[in-house]
Amino acid sequence: MKPTHIEHIGIAVKNLDEAIPFYEEVFGLKCYNVEEVTDQKVKTAFFKVGQTKIELLESTDPEGPIGKFIEKKGEGIHHMAFAVENINEQLQAAEAKGVRLIDKTSRKGAEGLSIGFLHPKSTFGVLTELCEHPK
Amino acid sequence: MKPTHIEHIGIAVKNLDEAIPFYEEVFGLKCYNVEEVTDQKVKTAFFKVGQTKIELLESTDPEGPIGKFIEKKGEGIHHMAFAVENINEQLQAAEAKGVRLIDKTSRKGAEGLSIGFLHPKSTFGVLTELCEHPK
Repeated sequence: MKPTHIEHIGIAVKNLDEAIPFYEEVFGLKCYNVEEVTDQKVKTAFFKVGQTKIELLESTDPEGPIGKFIEKKGEGIHHMAFAVENINEQLQAAEAKGVRLIDKTSRKGAEGLSIGFLHPKSTFGVLTELCEHPK
Repeated sequence: MKPTHIEHIGIAVKNLDEAIPFYEEVFGLKCYNVEEVTDQKVKTAFFKVGQTKIELLESTDPEGPIGKFIEKKGEGIHHMAFAVENINEQLQAAEAKGVRLIDKTSRKGAEGLSIGFLHPKSTFGVLTELCEHPK
């Protein structure tokens, strides 16, 4: 697979209006975009740290994945994402090596990326996302 | 503060002997170092992905921080670390902004870095580490 870098770290928060100023004032990072991803039932705020984005995720629906995550585990790191080339080949290769997939083929994620998730039961508890930037 | 990049992502695993081959075979990453950090009661395996290290953490003592984390939450992402300059100034500045510190001043971590942790109750549930590379 050989990911090139950590594309982002996804962090579940209850309230972007509290978390964004914290990340800006304490860590000195700049929120450069806020985007709603309706099929994931989240509103996402983006910050850049070197090659990697921090994505703060606020649930827009208690029944959505971030709403359920916060109810069960509280706020905190939700997933990490590797940047890869040829995402669909990588998903197939991972499956061929015994990894359980959440997404058999990639779909559109925030910021126009193609994304696919591996199941945390196959990846030592880490919800792992693969991302490919549009050419 | 303005961190330059994500220095590493720390992942709690039960067994490095299972997790290292998985990261090598499925993700195509190379484990370049295994190191025991006795005061943290962990054995750590390092991989590099772009600017960022993946640190797999196996507990050497059920009463250590990683042992307790796995008992409570299971395997998964344990913390994230920002690379910063002048770590002690950054810890003081964070405290002055109301952040609760685990480490008031930096101490030696794996690979010779100076490290200090912020308390997750102050950082939206994310155990956040600051790291400074030795000059």
